[in-house]
This record gives sequence, C-alpha cells and structure tokens, in this order.
Amino acid sequence: MIAHILSTGDEVLLGDIVDTNSAFLCSALKEMGIDVQKIVAVGDDVNDIASVIGDSSLTADICLVTGGLGPTRDDLTAFAGGKAADDRLELSQDALASMRSYFKKRGFVLTKDNEKQAMLPSSSNMLINYNGTAPGFYMKINRCLFFFMPGVPSEMKIMFEKEVKKILVNEFSLTDDILIERLTVFGLTESKVGSLLKGFETKFSELRLGFRATFPVIEVKIILIDSREDKDISDIARAKQWVIQQLENKVISDRGLTIAQEVGRLLTKLKKTLAIAESCTGGLISNMVTDVAGSSNYFLFSGITYSNDAKINILNVRKETIVEYGAVHDQTALEMAEGVRRKAGADFAISTTGVAGPGGGTEEKPVGMVCIGLAGSELSMAKTYRFSFDDRVKNKKIFATTGLELLRRHLVLLDKTP
Amino acid sequence: MIAHILSTGDEVLLGDIVDTNSAFLCSALKEMGIDVQKIVAVGDDVNDIASVIGDSSLTADICLVTGGLGPTRDDLTAFAGGKAADDRLELSQDALASMRSYFKKRGFVLTKDNEKQAMLPSSSNMLINYNGTAPGFYMKINRCLFFFMPGVPSEMKIMFEKEVKKILVNEFSLTDDILIERLTVFGLTESKVGSLLKGFETKFSELRLGFRATFPVIEVKIILIDSREDKDISDIARAKQWVIQQLENKVISDRGLTIAQEVGRLLTKLKKTLAIAESCTGGLISNMVTDVAGSSNYFLFSGITYSNDAKINILNVRKETIVEYGAVHDQTALEMAEGVRRKAGADFAISTTGVAGPGGGTEEKPVGMVCIGLAGSELSMAKTYRFSFDDRVKNKKIFATTGLELLRRHLVLLDKTP
Repeated sequence: MIAHILSTGDEVLLGDIVDTNSAFLCSALKEMGIDVQKIVAVGDDVNDIASVIGDSSLTADICLVTGGLGPTRDDLTAFAGGKAADDRLELSQDALASMRSYFKKRGFVLTKDNEKQAMLPSSSNMLINYNGTAPGFYMKINRCLFFFMPGVPSEMKIMFEKEVKKILVNEFSLTDDILIERLTVFGLTESKVGSLLKGFETKFSELRLGFRATFPVIEVKIILIDSREDKDISDIARAKQWVIQQLENKVISDRGLTIAQEVGRLLTKLKKTLAIAESCTGGLISNMVTDVAGSSNYFLFSGITYSNDAKINILNVRKETIVEYGAVHDQTALEMAEGVRRKAGADFAISTTGVAGPGGGTEEKPVGMVCIGLAGSELSMAKTYRFSFDDRVKNKKIFATTGLELLRRHLVLLDKTP
Repeated sequence: MIAHILSTGDEVLLGDIVDTNSAFLCSALKEMGIDVQKIVAVGDDVNDIASVIGDSSLTADICLVTGGLGPTRDDLTAFAGGKAADDRLELSQDALASMRSYFKKRGFVLTKDNEKQAMLPSSSNMLINYNGTAPGFYMKINRCLFFFMPGVPSEMKIMFEKEVKKILVNEFSLTDDILIERLTVFGLTESKVGSLLKGFETKFSELRLGFRATFPVIEVKIILIDSREDKDISDIARAKQWVIQQLENKVISDRGLTIAQEVGRLLTKLKKTLAIAESCTGGLISNMVTDVAGSSNYFLFSGITYSNDAKINILNVRKETIVEYGAVHDQTALEMAEGVRRKAGADFAISTTGVAGPGGGTEEKPVGMVCIGLAGSELSMAKTYRFSFDDRVKNKKIFATTGLELLRRHLVLLDKTP
C-alpha cells in the first residue's frame, strides 16, 4: 500500500514551525504496518494544494492531509479538495451538528464565520473533531482515499486515533491490534544501537523496529502488527530479550520510561526518599525528577549550590576540601551528596560538580568533566566522567542523566537483594 | 523565484525523527527574501528521489536537497541526482582533497568506503563540509539549480551558511546583507500577537515579519532584506518601535534574548546576585538560569523545597505559616523568597509554590495556581496567578517564566532609577 502525507499551511514553509504532525502520522502509520512513501508540504495556496492532491490521487492508496480547515480566509483545504475531485462544496448537516454540539458543551454560540467550516465536498464524509471546532472529512479521489484533518496537533492526533484509524482498519482489512514494547537506552549512540541490532529483521521477520533519539537517550520500539491472527505472541517477548541482550547493560527501562520515571518507580517500590545537590547541572536533575507526576512522594529537597559559599554553608562541604581539591573533585561531590542527604533527612542523595562549558575548562579539569556523588545510609561514593561535548546544554543533559543512572543502578541492586 | 526543499532519508518517513532541517532552510531562505513553495520528503529510494528531482528541475529555480550523502549503501542521493540529470558519477578530485584535509585534521586515514562519498555527478561542483566527512555539491538540472547537502543538521547548517548562501547571492543577485531585529514576547498567544501586528505588511512594505513560538514565549522577527540598496534603514527602527507599542508591555527582550538571558544581563549590569526557592517549578527556574553561560557570576544558590520540612528547616519558613495558610499561599512564597535570600546572602530572590498538576488541585487551590515571591533588600512581595493548563510540564514552564518576568520587571525599574 502506498501512503502519502500532505501538510498545508504557510507557517511550515516560512520556517515558523517545525512540522511535527507528519512525524506523528508516519510513526502511527508505521505501527499499523503502513509505510509512507512521500511527505509533501505546501502553503495556503489553492492551486498548490489541489495540484499535490491531484498527483497523490493517481499514485497513492491513502493520503493524510493536515491543516487549512479553520475559519479564516487562509483556510482553503476543503476548497482545494473539492477542486481536485471536481466536486462542489455544500453545507454538511453532520458537520454542522457536530460543531453545534462542540460549541454547546463549551457554552459558545455558533457564528456565521464558523459555519464556513461545515462546507465540505459533497461526496465526502465527516470526521469528528473532539478537540476543536473544525470538522475533518474523508473522500475517495481517483484511486486514493484522502483524510483531511486539522493542523493543530492536539486536534489532529485525537481525530486520527478515534476516527481515521478505524476507517483505515475497515477499508484495508488492517488491524489496530498492535503490540509495542518500548525500551529506553542510554550510553550508546544511535548508529551504535543500529549496528548492535543488525540482523533483527531477518531474525524476527514478523516484527518491526523503530527508534526515536532524544539526546542523550534513545527509545527502541519493537512492534508486533496483527496480533489477532495466530502469529506467535511469544515472538515479541523473545525479541525483547534478544534486544536487551544485544544492548547489554545500556537499557535503563524495559517499559519505555524516562530515566527519572524509572528512578521514581524504584524509589516508590523500595519506599525510599531522595535529595539532590547540583552544581554544574544547575537544577536540571531536579527538574527532570519533578517532571514526573507524583514525585512529591519521594523527592524531598535539592540544593543548587553554584557558589562555593553555598556548598560550604548550606551543604556543609568542608572548606578545606574546596581549598585542597577545588570545587570539581570526587571528594567535593562526595561531601555534597552526604551533606544534602543529612540536611533533607533523605534515604539517598546524588550530587554533581563539573564543567559544563563553554568557558571554565582547564587542562586538568576540561569542559565535559563531571564528578558525581551518591550517598545512602550504608553507601558513600563518587565517580568522575569525561564527555566530549562543547555544548553547555548538552553537557548538562548528559551529566544529569549519568547522575540518575548511577542511582538507578544502585536501586536495581537493592531491589534484587533479598 | 520558486524554491523547493527535498529531504531524503527513511528515518523521516518512519517517523523516527522530525525534519528540522527543512524548517531551518525555510527560515534561512525567507531571511534572504526567498519564499519556499514546496517541501518534499522521500525515503532512501533512488527512483523516488530521482523522480522528485526531475519534477523540481522543471518547475523550480532552486532546490535544496538534504540527506543521503553518507558512506553506506542507503546513501543514494548523488546517484539519484546523476540519474535525474542523465549524468554519470566520477571521482571528484576536489571532493577527495577536501575529505583528505578533514580526515588529516582529526588524525584519521581515508578508507576506500569513504572514497564513495567523493563520487559526484560529472557536471557538479563540490561544496565543502566543514563539520563532517561527506562533501556536498551543486549542479543545474533543466531550469533549476540544485544544492545537495548532508542530512546531519550541524553539517548541513554550516554548509548552507558558508557555501550555499554565497552562491545564491551571486547567481541570483541577492543580498546576504540582511538586518534582523528579534523581540521576545511573553504573555500573549500566537494568534493574539498575529492580530495585534495586523497591518504590519502594508505599513512597512519593505519589511517582513516572522514568528517562532516556543511555549510560553514567542519570538517576533522583523527582517529588512537588501539593506545595501538605498532603502531606508531607519524603517526597521520605526517598525520595531511600532511592534513594541502594539505588543504593549509584553516584550521581555528587544534583542531576542530568552527571559533567563535578559534577567542575567540586567543582574550583571546592576552588579546584583540571585537566589531562588522553588517548590512547584521543581528546579526549572534554576535550570533556565544556569543554561546561560556565565550565570555563575550572579547566581548563587537555589533551594528546591518540595517537602514542607525542607521549606521550614532549610529556608526558615515559619511552621505556623504552613499550618495556617498551607504550602500554596502568598505568605509562604514570601517567606521562601526572604529565607533563601538570607541563606544565600543574595541581593534578590524569587520563589514559587503552586499546583502543577495533574493531581493535587482543590477548588480553592486548583491545578494551574501559583504563588510567586520576590525579595530584595528593600522589597518583599508575593503575587498569585492562575493559569488554565492541565499539563504538568506546561504549568511548570509558565510558572517559571512568570517568576523570572516578575524579577525582570523589577530589575528594569531599578535600572531606570537614577
């Protein structure tokens, strides 16, 4: 099956926004077993839109169109769809009723301006917009089934999930009964993950592999399509084990959690609390930890001690330690972790002190060097790492993830201890 | 002039990555006065790539192609370019020399595998890759000038800036002498900014307007193209004043700085230091502040006090305050700011305490409510805000920006006081 995606709207072509809709749709189609052959983006121009629709109507089986369904005069997609199909627009009673119900729920009244959004090609069927005013629609033009959806990501996504998927499954005898296993990987480059998993496709021909890199972690997806038929579901379990084995100890979650979610899950399970002392990561670890809903159950306190005075006065790092070894040193990291743990009365504490750059590096302590401390009731350690990025924000990210990973490994051991 | 962009590579069509290259190129071309008519993305398939190149060669004046120049067998763009141009590939001595020099600098030796990357269409000219191994190239096919660049963003961007731009300027008598004014806006939606700036194009017909929204701020760009000709440069100054006037007091930087950069600039100028006490923002403010290089000159300490004990024991919030008013209250925010300021010995302190959600809201203190404190040597205040987002991460972002904005406004006043 040949699938195309058409993204409309001047904002994409002006570079004002990045087209994340198309990536979402590619990923969603892939999970249904449909490969996308081409993505096209054009501006709010009827002729440009109609011309691309015309091309796809002759060469593709399905085409997902986003954008241009709003109430303003820039919103021309329905008109362009009608033009390409040689079909006139008419007021869709279904669309009107759907809009009325949406407006009513929010206590608004439908205006004449809004009614324009209910003018759809006469041969089309309406798609409900659960999250906004503009209804979508779908229609066959030549050999291709077109789905027209809004450009606002939150509206488009729910329309795809609730409406489009169902129709695709029926029309093309697909399944939406998909099993996906997600693994979170840290400590390998994308190309290294790719080469370690080489041979997956031949080994597990019923399965598909997907990747999504968000520095410094990579999500690996193992996808089993059509699990309703009597394909062997144990396959995906075997594949998961194989992937984990190939990636050795770099899998930080075998259920697709972020490092902070996984640390939170383990702390909750073990009924332990956490404190954090950050220097070079400047609050990033705390921010990652508190992005997790429910983190107030285990996270107590962080001290972001940029100045040496704060390290000494608030975390009780010994002045002599700073004088003798400097702020960036294992001994300082150790005392920071111990200090913040005592201060907060927490079970565990991690700490960071290093050089994020771009300035501040020396030959002995270059940009990219970080000392990470870990303290618990029966544990006190620090370790130095060196990364090779010049970029301050990248360094903060990899330092923070490394700190949480050190804690995670300890919690995993603890969890396994009888 | 008609410009197309062609993005090649399976990873985009599989949804594994979002195509940020095209947004960068659209924005860069717009700043040169060139509008992009169409973006196309296809996978690593010679026929698909050659077919799109063929289409653009007949309908566009320029086409920027990214991806597929690497050493592996997936990298087929040069071959597809040759196919579309009916041209054979040959070993480019320029490309080989450029690669040799790149490898030598890094102490590597060129392998046979790498040599494949120097095989370019015979009628093409090489483009230097300053940041990687694969050289780019440009060539005319039919009416269209094609530029082939690598897909790795850091390699593509520098090739565009250093090589492609120069050639475009020469070939099409353009200018790269562009004046851009950037304004950072906070407290307005994108559509509100759009409607407040309605009429800009007719008022300042020589200028262009661009937007880039990164929640919760919006960057407004005012672009003057071709300032070499005797266009009135004072126009852009007038336009900037007009835009600032239209947006009233929502412009947080008139030079495109982030809120944290602007606060840092003002603190540096006023020779003042900063401490922060965060509850619901959980380290995000500190992280934003420390993302700014050089922030160690004014930022001293943050206490991320999630637990009430930490607020009381570390920041010296009075126990009675928490008992009487609760953790989310102006009085608590006030004492947090005062407490952390004293603790760190800082000139200024800000604090946040609120409900980021998704849980924890009550009728009296709903999700989206935040109390922000601000303390200085002659200043102590707190203010409550209510936002309507359910999303934890969005709430943290808007709370944090609001906190920094409260401080910024005070610093601006201080800066103006004789």
